[in-house]
Amino acid sequence: MAFKVVPQYAANMYPKGFQCGAFYAGIKKAAKKSPDLAVIYSTTSCKAAATFTLNRFQAAPVLVSKLVLSDKGDEVYGVIMNSGCANACTGDQGLKDATTMSSLASRTFIPKTRLDELKMLVMSTGVIGQALPMDKVSQGIEALQKHIGNTHQHWSDVARAFMTTDTFPKLRVRELKLPQCGETVRLAGISKGAGMIHPNMATMLGTVVTDAKFASTEVLQEMTKSVVDRTFNAITIDGDTSTNDTFCVLANGAAMRLPLSGQDVAAFQECLLDLSKELAQLIVRGASISNIFWFMNVFVDGEGATKFVTVHVTNAKSTEDARKVAKAICTSSLVKTAIYGQGQPSLILNVLIVISIDANWGRIIAAAGYSEAEFDPAALNLFICAGTAQPGRLNKPSLQLVRNGQPHQLNEEVASTIFRGDDITVEVNLNADGSGAEATMWTCDFSKEYVAINADYRS
Amino acid sequence: MAFKVVPQYAANMYPKGFQCGAFYAGIKKAAKKSPDLAVIYSTTSCKAAATFTLNRFQAAPVLVSKLVLSDKGDEVYGVIMNSGCANACTGDQGLKDATTMSSLASRTFIPKTRLDELKMLVMSTGVIGQALPMDKVSQGIEALQKHIGNTHQHWSDVARAFMTTDTFPKLRVRELKLPQCGETVRLAGISKGAGMIHPNMATMLGTVVTDAKFASTEVLQEMTKSVVDRTFNAITIDGDTSTNDTFCVLANGAAMRLPLSGQDVAAFQECLLDLSKELAQLIVRGASISNIFWFMNVFVDGEGATKFVTVHVTNAKSTEDARKVAKAICTSSLVKTAIYGQGQPSLILNVLIVISIDANWGRIIAAAGYSEAEFDPAALNLFICAGTAQPGRLNKPSLQLVRNGQPHQLNEEVASTIFRGDDITVEVNLNADGSGAEATMWTCDFSKEYVAINADYRS
Repeated sequence: MAFKVVPQYAANMYPKGFQCGAFYAGIKKAAKKSPDLAVIYSTTSCKAAATFTLNRFQAAPVLVSKLVLSDKGDEVYGVIMNSGCANACTGDQGLKDATTMSSLASRTFIPKTRLDELKMLVMSTGVIGQALPMDKVSQGIEALQKHIGNTHQHWSDVARAFMTTDTFPKLRVRELKLPQCGETVRLAGISKGAGMIHPNMATMLGTVVTDAKFASTEVLQEMTKSVVDRTFNAITIDGDTSTNDTFCVLANGAAMRLPLSGQDVAAFQECLLDLSKELAQLIVRGASISNIFWFMNVFVDGEGATKFVTVHVTNAKSTEDARKVAKAICTSSLVKTAIYGQGQPSLILNVLIVISIDANWGRIIAAAGYSEAEFDPAALNLFICAGTAQPGRLNKPSLQLVRNGQPHQLNEEVASTIFRGDDITVEVNLNADGSGAEATMWTCDFSKEYVAINADYRS
Repeated sequence: MAFKVVPQYAANMYPKGFQCGAFYAGIKKAAKKSPDLAVIYSTTSCKAAATFTLNRFQAAPVLVSKLVLSDKGDEVYGVIMNSGCANACTGDQGLKDATTMSSLASRTFIPKTRLDELKMLVMSTGVIGQALPMDKVSQGIEALQKHIGNTHQHWSDVARAFMTTDTFPKLRVRELKLPQCGETVRLAGISKGAGMIHPNMATMLGTVVTDAKFASTEVLQEMTKSVVDRTFNAITIDGDTSTNDTFCVLANGAAMRLPLSGQDVAAFQECLLDLSKELAQLIVRGASISNIFWFMNVFVDGEGATKFVTVHVTNAKSTEDARKVAKAICTSSLVKTAIYGQGQPSLILNVLIVISIDANWGRIIAAAGYSEAEFDPAALNLFICAGTAQPGRLNKPSLQLVRNGQPHQLNEEVASTIFRGDDITVEVNLNADGSGAEATMWTCDFSKEYVAINADYRS
């Protein structure tokens, strides 16, 4: 790969021409005054692209951001965001407030902005159905000016402002030497989850900024859509879709003379895909870790780490079919329970639970069976392997659980080794004639106490 | 209503001409030797109708029952069933075993059955991917002859044989005086769940037998399909569909001279609908109660009963749209958590959790929003009321939570009263122009420990 995964602490590796900042404006009603208002902006205008929730109830910030994009897709400057209040289901007042938020931020941070100009996208996350405390937001945007910069600390504060139930901030950076023009560009990305607990309240947000130069917003929009389909749209915690989900990419071109062209476009897309994939996977890992925290608090023992699960579906008739099967498996609470429990004896409140492996692969193929994808059950093969594997390439150790729709001989020892790891890959080969289409999704397993009652059922 | 809901203990109220029996044949590997093999049959042939799982992986008993129906829909005699092993994903061996099970039972219980005749439907429930222990099944069918009769005890044993994770047997009886011909017929029904815990392993099964007479299997099949759509297909515990789900109706005509006709058909259908609705709802109540048991075991306090939730969607553009919205709400784990937690302070492992009401209705309308039904968010109204209400007719006390897509004034005291009950109705009025279509679904809430971590999130 031509791009470099830059450690977060390399502050000079952030994209050129961007400023940012965050602080506690009092929107979150939290004892710990962690940042709840943040801004990221470029000193020159950006090409901007975004994808939004498909929920019929779209929150006011989503509607306003769409407006900004359609008006100013070629001349967006940044994002103003808050946590603590989603400004969703708030009617006309909500629209007015989101508009004010964009307008105020535009005039505060972007010189020569007229009163009626919106140059900032808006993101909000938190409780649904409550109005934004606009006095705090207005005073906050004013006060935010004192917290602006481009050091790692500034970016890190912004990532923390994105958090609601997230257990850690999600900030990642890439540096890419373009193979054709020889110039170097940088990408910085922030995402927020989606605890398993209430993704709906905890909206999925993502932002990537870069100093690469794009010829048109159309190229950027197409690339963004393609990347999101394989990253943010390929993760699931519990299948609910929020009213506020937003992912945007801002490119200010500060590091390049001429726009990306030829093989540099593909190189940039590969890098954006890699960064977005990591940001999306961090959301799943965050949900997984929040489970562990929860058990450490509530249960006597906190052992038994939860799992990061990669699901590959290969040789489907179409990509759509492959996605249907992957989604059914990833959203089945029965599968998620089974994956958690596999192979590990566990002590919960003095009740010894021993979970055995042989029965539960049936849940995976049952989920495939009701996914509404077209395939021949008698041709299906099911494998598991350790770690996070590539489609069609199993890591070692691996195990075939189902061969041509029927149970395959099971090596309990190998299975136990696989399930002892934190990362597990499930591969379903549908063996369908056709395009050899495939899909990948990521999810986490279900929690311990949900398993406990399941575990000894073997009647 | 013309029909009588007969208490279970009225043994002479079971349909005429049916025999049944159950005992422990050793298929379940359980310490408690509860029945795991059962038969219900008529001494004369029945008209039979059934609906089966839509899962692409259909278990061997489903495939064999379909074969029996298509061969002998006019001349089926009964059902042989076992718990402890689902005989699913068992390939050719499974088909052979299910066929043997039907054949053996046919020859054992139905006189003059030839070696190649299958007169019995087959139902199996339990672990997926394991072969039936055919020696135990064969010896069991032989031994079952000593346990046959038609007293309440016999029917009750059969209902217990249907159980896997079910917390109680589900057996209900109806007596119906037909308005036109004046004759009296009886219906007996058994169902099995679907614990919240693993409905997939715990397959949904239902059987209704009656001594009413049908002119043709087509009439019975059409009626069965229509009833199932509004009963067994209208409940959800966690959305997974099993490989073995089966509902069948057997009518031997023993109580009538001539087949049902005219308004007697409608009267019978109303009675079958009522019985099936109760059998389906019992599955949800069983899942709900199993939660309570679980908490009584594990947590210090067992207070805070879980809820039986009725979801009505009214004034949709089409029945399909109404069902989409109802299903999205019923299967959203966020909604189910919210409904559990509402309005009750609760002490879990010495952590005081106070759950407040105002934030969580957002989850219900967000679920409606991603249901893919067509409607105008700004026209949606959301109500809750106590008890199990009829569509469009709220019980008292009731409360409007959303008016025209926006939060409505909330009376916390009334809300608290509603949520204190065991049964709650949620009504979503989409106010769409169109057919005024509606749908009803039933579900239960999500469990306490899932709520605990949610509860104090108000950032």
